[in-house]
Amino acid sequence: MGVSLSVLTIGDELLNGEMADTNTAAIARILASRGFAVRDSLSVRDEMDGIVAALQGLADRRAVLIVTGGLGPTADDLTAEAAARAFARPLEENPAALEEIRAYFLRHNLTMHPRNDKQALLPAGVEILANKRGTAPGFHLETGHCSCFFLPGVPAEMTAMLEEAVLPRLERDYGEETPTRERVLKVFGLSEPKCEALLAAAGLPEGVQVAFGVDFPFVHVKLRTSGAAAALLLDRAEPLARRTLGDFVIAVGDASLPQTVARLLTEKGKTLALAESCTGGWIAKQLTDLPGASAFLERGAVTYANSAKHDWLKVPESVLETQGAVSAECARAMAKGIREAARVDLALSVTGIAGPDGGTPGKPVGTVFIGLASESGEEVKGYRFSGNRDTVRRLSACMALDRLRRHLEKA
Amino acid sequence: MGVSLSVLTIGDELLNGEMADTNTAAIARILASRGFAVRDSLSVRDEMDGIVAALQGLADRRAVLIVTGGLGPTADDLTAEAAARAFARPLEENPAALEEIRAYFLRHNLTMHPRNDKQALLPAGVEILANKRGTAPGFHLETGHCSCFFLPGVPAEMTAMLEEAVLPRLERDYGEETPTRERVLKVFGLSEPKCEALLAAAGLPEGVQVAFGVDFPFVHVKLRTSGAAAALLLDRAEPLARRTLGDFVIAVGDASLPQTVARLLTEKGKTLALAESCTGGWIAKQLTDLPGASAFLERGAVTYANSAKHDWLKVPESVLETQGAVSAECARAMAKGIREAARVDLALSVTGIAGPDGGTPGKPVGTVFIGLASESGEEVKGYRFSGNRDTVRRLSACMALDRLRRHLEKA
Repeated sequence: MGVSLSVLTIGDELLNGEMADTNTAAIARILASRGFAVRDSLSVRDEMDGIVAALQGLADRRAVLIVTGGLGPTADDLTAEAAARAFARPLEENPAALEEIRAYFLRHNLTMHPRNDKQALLPAGVEILANKRGTAPGFHLETGHCSCFFLPGVPAEMTAMLEEAVLPRLERDYGEETPTRERVLKVFGLSEPKCEALLAAAGLPEGVQVAFGVDFPFVHVKLRTSGAAAALLLDRAEPLARRTLGDFVIAVGDASLPQTVARLLTEKGKTLALAESCTGGWIAKQLTDLPGASAFLERGAVTYANSAKHDWLKVPESVLETQGAVSAECARAMAKGIREAARVDLALSVTGIAGPDGGTPGKPVGTVFIGLASESGEEVKGYRFSGNRDTVRRLSACMALDRLRRHLEKA
Repeated sequence: MGVSLSVLTIGDELLNGEMADTNTAAIARILASRGFAVRDSLSVRDEMDGIVAALQGLADRRAVLIVTGGLGPTADDLTAEAAARAFARPLEENPAALEEIRAYFLRHNLTMHPRNDKQALLPAGVEILANKRGTAPGFHLETGHCSCFFLPGVPAEMTAMLEEAVLPRLERDYGEETPTRERVLKVFGLSEPKCEALLAAAGLPEGVQVAFGVDFPFVHVKLRTSGAAAALLLDRAEPLARRTLGDFVIAVGDASLPQTVARLLTEKGKTLALAESCTGGWIAKQLTDLPGASAFLERGAVTYANSAKHDWLKVPESVLETQGAVSAECARAMAKGIREAARVDLALSVTGIAGPDGGTPGKPVGTVFIGLASESGEEVKGYRFSGNRDTVRRLSACMALDRLRRHLEKA
C-alpha cells in the first residue's frame, strides 16, 4: 500500500448538504498519478473540538495527512487555531504568511481587508506553502511522526498548491514506497457483473486482480498488480481485457467519453455540428469543456421550440404535425438539417422526453431518438431510458457521444 | 446538535480519484431538511480490515450510522461480510433479501445473473430495506447502542431508500432531539469577508450566528439559531440580512441561480433565447436541467465558428473582420440577432476567450463580453475573469444569468 496517507476535509458546507466534497477525489487523482494511495478520508464540521480530535487521531495513525479548508478570513475558519491546539504550539503571526497575503492583494490591485490579516495567524514553527491563486497561504507542520499539509478549501487553489508544493516533497520523502499499479478501462453499455463474468474467462495473467467501480453510466474495470514486474503484467493484461470487452471500452486511463470523441474527431480531421432538444446543450457543453473544441465543433443548436427546429434545421411542418417532435423522423430531419446548415462532416441529433412531465402511453418519459448524419446518410435509433430527468438527459448525451465514437472508430 | 450521526461511504473509487463522494452531501441535504445534522463522514476503501475497523469505531461513538456502498454483486463488494465480522454475527442467506432481488429481475424482464445471489448474503438478524430501483437490498442492524443503516452506493437507489425507509425511522426514534435551525442566503458578486463585514453592522437579532460557505462562485451566508423561538428569530434576521446584502442575494434557501432565473421568467411570462460562444451551451444546459424550461426557453445557439454567428445570428462580416468575434460589438449583434431570429422577449449572448490558448496582449484569456437584449435594446458589458478554462466558463455563465436575474427583478 505504500506510505500511509489520509485526507481530512473541513467545512460545515460538506456536512449540511450544500456541496459535495470534491477535494478528496481531486487529491486522490493527483496522488494516484504519482503512485500514492489515499487510505481513507474524513470530513468534519467547522467546530474546534471536532477538528482538534480529528487532527490528533489521524496524525497518530498516519505518516502523511493532507488537510483542506478552514484557512479563510472569517470567524468560522478555525483550522490554523485547531492545528495549534492539536499539536500544542502557540498561534502567532507568521511574517512570511503576511507577506504572501499582502503580495496577493498588490498583484491583483485589490485593497486588503483587515480581516485578511487573520490568515497569517499560524501555529509556531510551520513552513509556508505559497498560494498563487488566492489569499490563504497553506502550511506544512511536522508532528514528529506525521507530516501534515494544510491547504485551502477552494479547489483551484488547493490543486495548484498540492502539485507545486506538496507532491515534490512527498516524492522526495516517500517516492520508493509505492508499489501497487493500476490500469483503468472505462466501459459503456455493459453491467458490472457482466464485465466480471466476461473477464473471469479472459485468461488474465496470474497476479493481476480485477476490481470494479461505477461512475454512472460508466463501469470502471480496474486491473491491478504489484511488484517489480507490475508494469509488464499490466501491459499483457490490458489488451486481453480490451479484446474481451470489445467495443464497449470507451477509454483506457484518464480519458472521458467526450475526450475520446474529441481525439477521434481531431485525428480524423472531421467537423461536427449538434442539434439538441431534450439534452438542452449538455453535449455541446461537454465537448466545449475541452480546450481545442473549436477545431472540430462548428456549431450546436438547442432547439427547444418547434419553431427553432423548423427555422434552423428545416424539419418539415408535416413531420412535426404527424409524427411529433419526439419521433425517429424528427431526429432524422434534425441530423440532416444541422449537417447541411453547418456544412460539416458529421452531425448528431437528440430529441426525447426527459420528464417528469410530457410522457404519453405510447411515448413514456425516457423515450429518446438519436440521429447520426454522415456522408452516407442518416442513422436513427430509438431508446427507452429509465430514471429521472437528470438520468434520462445524462444517458441521452452519453449514448449520442458513444454512437459518434463507434462511427469514428469504424471509419 | 441533536442525535449524534455519522456517514460512512465505502469504495475504492472514492479514494483513488475516479469519482467524488456525492452521497455524503446528498444524505446531509436530505437529513438537514428534516432537522438532522451529520456530525462527520468517513470514506474507506474496499478492504475488509479497514471497513471492519471503521464500522466498529463509528458504531462505538455514534447513535446513528449511515453506510453506503459495497452491497453490489462483485467480489470487491465487502460491506455485508464486514458488518457480520464487525458485529460478530454469522453471515447467512437472507430469504427476504433473495425474494427482493428475484422480484427486481422479474419486474424488469431481466435474467438474474448467478452472482446476484451473493447480494442476499447478510449478517444474521438484520431487517431488509427494499430497493425499488436496483438489485442491492439495503439492511438495518441494531448493535445495542448504534442504529446502523446500510444503503447501496448508486445515488438514485441510495436516495430513494433513505427517504422511504430510513427517514421515517429516524423521525420516529429521534424526532425530538433536533434543535438548530439554519437559513441560507446565496450571494453572487460579494466576497466572504465583505459579507461578514457588512453583516457585522446589520444589527441582526441576538442569538443569531452567521457562518459562511463557498460554492464557487457563490458565497453562502448561513443564519443560525436554536431554541424554541428559532423560527421567529430567523424570520426577523432574514429580511435584515437581505436588505444589508442588497441585490447581491440571488436566492434564499435551496434555489440555485438558474432556478431563480427560471422562476422570474415564468412569473413574468417572458421568453428567452441564448447565443453562446465560449460557454458552449452551458447556460442552456443549466436552464434545461430544470423541469418546465420549455415554458420560457425558445432556443439556444452554440455558435463556435464565425459562419454560425453570421448565418444564424446575422452578425455582420464587418464586425467579425474589424472587431473580431470576441468584442462588445459582436456580443451586441449576437444578442440582437438571436432575439430577432427566435422572436422572444429577452436574449443573452456570451463571447469570450476561455483559454488556455487564444489570448492576445489586448484580449487576454478571461476576456468575455456579455450582451442582454430586450425590447429596450441591447446592453453589453465586458469582463476580465481570472482562472483556468473551467473557471472562466463558469463565471461567464453565472454572470450572464445574473445579468438576466437583475434585469427581471427590476422589470
